Amino acid sequence: MNSKSYLNDLICSQCGKSYSSDTVQTFCHECVAPLQAVYDLDRARAELDREEFRRRNKGMWRWSELLPVQNETNCLTLGEGDTPLLKQTRLGETLDLPRLWVKEEGVNPTGSFKARGLAAAVSKAGELGIHNLVIPTAGNAGGALAAYAARGGLKAHIIMPSDTPLANSQECRITGATVEFVDGLISDAAKIAGRMAQEEGFFDVSTFKEPYRLEGKKVLGYELAEAFNWELPDVIIYPTGGGTGLIGMWKAFAELEQLGWLKNTKRPRMVSVQAAGCAPVVKAFENGDFYCEFWEDAETIASGLRVPKSFADRLIMQCLYDSQGMAMAVSDAEIQQAQQEWGNLEGLFTCPEGAATLAALKKLLSPGSFGDHPWIQAEEHVVLFNTATGLKYI
Amino acid sequence: MNSKSYLNDLICSQCGKSYSSDTVQTFCHECVAPLQAVYDLDRARAELDREEFRRRNKGMWRWSELLPVQNETNCLTLGEGDTPLLKQTRLGETLDLPRLWVKEEGVNPTGSFKARGLAAAVSKAGELGIHNLVIPTAGNAGGALAAYAARGGLKAHIIMPSDTPLANSQECRITGATVEFVDGLISDAAKIAGRMAQEEGFFDVSTFKEPYRLEGKKVLGYELAEAFNWELPDVIIYPTGGGTGLIGMWKAFAELEQLGWLKNTKRPRMVSVQAAGCAPVVKAFENGDFYCEFWEDAETIASGLRVPKSFADRLIMQCLYDSQGMAMAVSDAEIQQAQQEWGNLEGLFTCPEGAATLAALKKLLSPGSFGDHPWIQAEEHVVLFNTATGLKYI
Repeated sequence: MNSKSYLNDLICSQCGKSYSSDTVQTFCHECVAPLQAVYDLDRARAELDREEFRRRNKGMWRWSELLPVQNETNCLTLGEGDTPLLKQTRLGETLDLPRLWVKEEGVNPTGSFKARGLAAAVSKAGELGIHNLVIPTAGNAGGALAAYAARGGLKAHIIMPSDTPLANSQECRITGATVEFVDGLISDAAKIAGRMAQEEGFFDVSTFKEPYRLEGKKVLGYELAEAFNWELPDVIIYPTGGGTGLIGMWKAFAELEQLGWLKNTKRPRMVSVQAAGCAPVVKAFENGDFYCEFWEDAETIASGLRVPKSFADRLIMQCLYDSQGMAMAVSDAEIQQAQQEWGNLEGLFTCPEGAATLAALKKLLSPGSFGDHPWIQAEEHVVLFNTATGLKYI
Repeated sequence: MNSKSYLNDLICSQCGKSYSSDTVQTFCHECVAPLQAVYDLDRARAELDREEFRRRNKGMWRWSELLPVQNETNCLTLGEGDTPLLKQTRLGETLDLPRLWVKEEGVNPTGSFKARGLAAAVSKAGELGIHNLVIPTAGNAGGALAAYAARGGLKAHIIMPSDTPLANSQECRITGATVEFVDGLISDAAKIAGRMAQEEGFFDVSTFKEPYRLEGKKVLGYELAEAFNWELPDVIIYPTGGGTGLIGMWKAFAELEQLGWLKNTKRPRMVSVQAAGCAPVVKAFENGDFYCEFWEDAETIASGLRVPKSFADRLIMQCLYDSQGMAMAVSDAEIQQAQQEWGNLEGLFTCPEGAATLAALKKLLSPGSFGDHPWIQAEEHVVLFNTATGLKYI
C-alpha cells in the first residue's frame, strides 16, 4: 500500500455534473445515473512510472494512486486482485485459437471477482465514516460485502433471492452479516435494500448506486494492460449482469491512455455474454438501443446473470458500441457443456457465468453465425473471464 | 518461469541412500520411508540472489531453481502460490497478540493448499513420462490432482471416502477425473490406490509415496521467509493430517539457511494441531514417541484431519521435537466456535482445519494449560494457517 490517491471529484456519467468525493455520495439523482470517479491524470502522468507498479507487493491496492481511498490505513485487504492470467493452450488447440487466455477471478477472496469492487467500496465507506451497509445481491456480491465489512468492523445487511446458491448465504453468515431472503430476483431484493437504506439509514452499495465498486473492478483493466505489456488484447469476452467489470475495464483503458502508458490506441472489442433466459443487453444490442428493457421472468442457472436490468445499462451499451463489440446470449445447456469441456481440457472449475464466455467464444469462431467470416480470427488475442469458482454453485 | 533446476538426487529420509531423480521414484522400499529431493545448494548459494525472486512474476514457480522440474515447459500452473499473508489486527486485539498473521491458502487454485504439492508432483510426473495417476484423498488433494492432471493432459484416478464433502467429488468430475468412493477413511482409500497402482500400473501420488508433493509445499516456507524479510516468525501453527506442509516448511528453512538467505539461525516453534477425534501425532508427542500409532475410529468434521497415521510420522515428530514445538488436539466444537469468531472479526471463511489453528492458539495463550506461563508470549510473531476455503465444506 502506497502513497496518496490522485482522486479529484466525481462526475455524473450522464450530465457531467460534479460531486465532491470528500463526502458520502450515491448517484446523480437528477439523471438517475451512476457517478464516476475522476483522477488528476495529468499530474499522475507527470509523476508516476508504470514500471514502478510491477515491483510493488501484489494485489489490487498496488494501484492505490488510481484508487479512491485517501489514507492507506483505510485500505481493507483480503488479498484481492492480481489473479492469474492463464494461457489456454489445450483449449486453444481444439479451437484453432493459439492466443487464448482466461482471467481466473475465482481465486479472489470469497471466490469471486466481486471481491475487487467491494474491497474498494467498503474501504471508502469506512473512510467516510459509514457503519452500516446494505446490498441486494444475486449471490457473490453479498459474500464479498460481508467479508470486507467484517474485516473493517462495519456491519453488513444482505438481501438475496431465496434460491441463491447455498454457498452465498453461508459465507455471509460465517462473517457475521445479517441475511434476508426474498422470493424473487435481485431486482426485488433491490427494492427492499432501497427501503432499508431509507428507513434505517444504511448505505446502499448496490451496483452503481455508489461510485467506488467500479473503481475496484477497473483494476482488471490495469492488470490486463500490464500483463500484455501495455498493449491490449483484441477481444475480451465478459459475462454481463450488472456490468461493473465491463464498464470498469473500459474506464481503465481510457485512464491508461490519458496516463500515456499504452503503446498504441488499439482497444479490445468488448463482448457481453448473457444467458438466453435473461438477456436484456443482448436484446438492446440487437435493436441498436442505448437502454435496456426490464427482462421479465428471468431464469438461468447462472445466478450472477439473473439481472433483469442494470442500473448502468447506458454505460454498458455505450461500451459495446464504442468498442465495436457485441452482445450475445447462450443457453444453459451450452453453458453446462462449456463448463465440462473447459474442466476436462484445462483443469478449471469455472462458474456458469464464466463458462458462458467459452460458449460464446465457440459461436464467435464459427463462420455463418455473424456474417460470412468468423467474428474472431485465428490470430487474435482473446481473453475469457471466469468470474467465480464453480465451488460456489454446488 | 525461469532457469534450470538445481536438483541433484533424492535420498531416503531414513537410511540416506541415494536415488536418481532422472527416473520415476516412489519411496525407499527398504526403509518404507519417504525420499527427499536434494539440491546443489552450494552452487545455488554462489549463483542465486534472493532479491531476484521478489521481482519475478508471482506464483510458486518463481522458485523454479529450487523446485524439481528440469524443463520449464513442463511446469503446470493454475496460479498456485504467493497466497496472502494477512495481518490479523482485529483478531489479534481480542487475543492481546499484536503480531498475528494468517497464511490464507484458500485462494489457491482448487481452493486449498493441496494445489502446491500437486502442481509440483503432476508437473514432474509429466516430465518423467507418466500418464496415469492415482490418489487416495480425504478430499482436497483429489481435487487438486484432478485439476493439474487435466491441465497437463494426464489422467487422474481419485479414491475418496464416501462421506467426503460434495465439493471434492464435484471438482474431480468437472475436470474429467474418475472418482471412486469407499466406505471408510483415507487409509482404506490408500489400500485401493495401492492395488490400482500395482495392477494397472498407475502412479501413486499418495502423500510422501512420491517425493515431489513435498517440494511444492516447501515453498510455503520460502514465501514466509521472504515476507518476514528473511527472519522467521516465532511460532507457526499448522493443522496436521499427512504433514506435508509442516515437513515442507521445515525442509525449506534448512535449505534457506544453507543458501545463506536467512538473517539468523532462529527457527519457529512448530505446532501441530489435530482434531480430538483423530490425534495420532498429539498422542505420540505426549508420549515422547517418534512414530505414531494408527488411530482407530477417526472422526471429526475437519475431513482433512481424518488421517489415522501419516506415512511420514517420523518426520513430523522430528520437526516438532527439533523446533521445540508441540502438538495439541482441539474439539469439533472448539473448531466451529473459532470458525465463527474468525469470520466475524476478519471476514475469512476458514475451513475446519484452518479454524483448528485458531482454537489451538487460544489455548496456547492461556496460562495454566501448559505450565504457569502461556506457551506463546504477547510479543511473539505468530502465523496461523488456513489451508482451504470454507466454501468446500458446505
